[in-house]
Amino acid sequence: MNSLDRLVASFAKLPGIGKKSATRMAYHVLDADRSYARLLGEQLVALHDNIKRCSVCGSYTESDPCPICLDSTRDRSVICAVERAQDVRVIEESGEFRGLFHVLGGTIAPLDGVGPEDLAIGSLIERILKGGIAEVIIATNPTIEGDTTALYLQKALKTTGVLVSRLASGLPVGGDLEYADRLTLSRSFRGRTPI
Amino acid sequence: MNSLDRLVASFAKLPGIGKKSATRMAYHVLDADRSYARLLGEQLVALHDNIKRCSVCGSYTESDPCPICLDSTRDRSVICAVERAQDVRVIEESGEFRGLFHVLGGTIAPLDGVGPEDLAIGSLIERILKGGIAEVIIATNPTIEGDTTALYLQKALKTTGVLVSRLASGLPVGGDLEYADRLTLSRSFRGRTPI
Repeated sequence: MNSLDRLVASFAKLPGIGKKSATRMAYHVLDADRSYARLLGEQLVALHDNIKRCSVCGSYTESDPCPICLDSTRDRSVICAVERAQDVRVIEESGEFRGLFHVLGGTIAPLDGVGPEDLAIGSLIERILKGGIAEVIIATNPTIEGDTTALYLQKALKTTGVLVSRLASGLPVGGDLEYADRLTLSRSFRGRTPI
Repeated sequence: MNSLDRLVASFAKLPGIGKKSATRMAYHVLDADRSYARLLGEQLVALHDNIKRCSVCGSYTESDPCPICLDSTRDRSVICAVERAQDVRVIEESGEFRGLFHVLGGTIAPLDGVGPEDLAIGSLIERILKGGIAEVIIATNPTIEGDTTALYLQKALKTTGVLVSRLASGLPVGGDLEYADRLTLSRSFRGRTPI
């Protein structure tokens, strides 16, 4: 196994990358200017030293607390609870939300041995108890695990008296009734809004 | 733009990787053990120092000449001419060929400004003139550029007196006549074999 094979093996560990794609990527790096391989390599080596988790919200950041947690122009009365750090980026890029975030760090998945105690729920309650929070928007994915986590969270936050809401689930915009699955359709009916 | 954004931008330069996949990959590296990021990074930084082009056949190798060119158990009378270095790997993995290779380094593509003089054709003729070569198998892709290159190569090698052949082109095994395009079907007819 030479350097090239080892690089292919490492690339193949990335999500969504099989052996064929990994091989293509490795040859691309070899064919490209050597400065590209060096740059990408150095970025990867330094990655964990440069990026940490925000001690307040748990998202990835270069400075702690993260720019979002420090931003005084944001609505500091609303916290959006997401499964993973990358969800913060997705929501930020949509520009639809101007409040704060809280990264749960996963979902309750008993089959994978993940219980509520493995998620950042205690720290969320602490943030609420410090005061100033009016609403928590649960933005877990509309999956079995995401639903379970949302339900658990809703119960756990009940004593805090904060308003708890959940992102609407239903037909995606531009979608077609014909191609909607039964569960999505069922949710669209239950979550219907008067017009 | 922080370290994470810069990593996403670098990942997005890989072939077949869009911004979404690049983001997913970057977060995966962050979520994974830091030893993985370090390993992949160091492999990339050292890549061009470890892997060079074989001075004989032009494929990527750690030692020059490459193991294939040095292997005395291979059939040293046949050279398979391929477009790119990764094609050597594909053919090697098929186990269908036990001769030597020659990497042309691309195809003749006038629109991209690539002429015959940009390909490793001179060095192929030199290898043939040194003697001992009975056949050159042209394994360029069955595309317009690959066909053009094969035609040019066939003419260029005529004076050497060596037998020149080309990989068969036609219906892929397991394919269906119904889904074959006209050009592939036309080639299948022209290249038909008596049974």
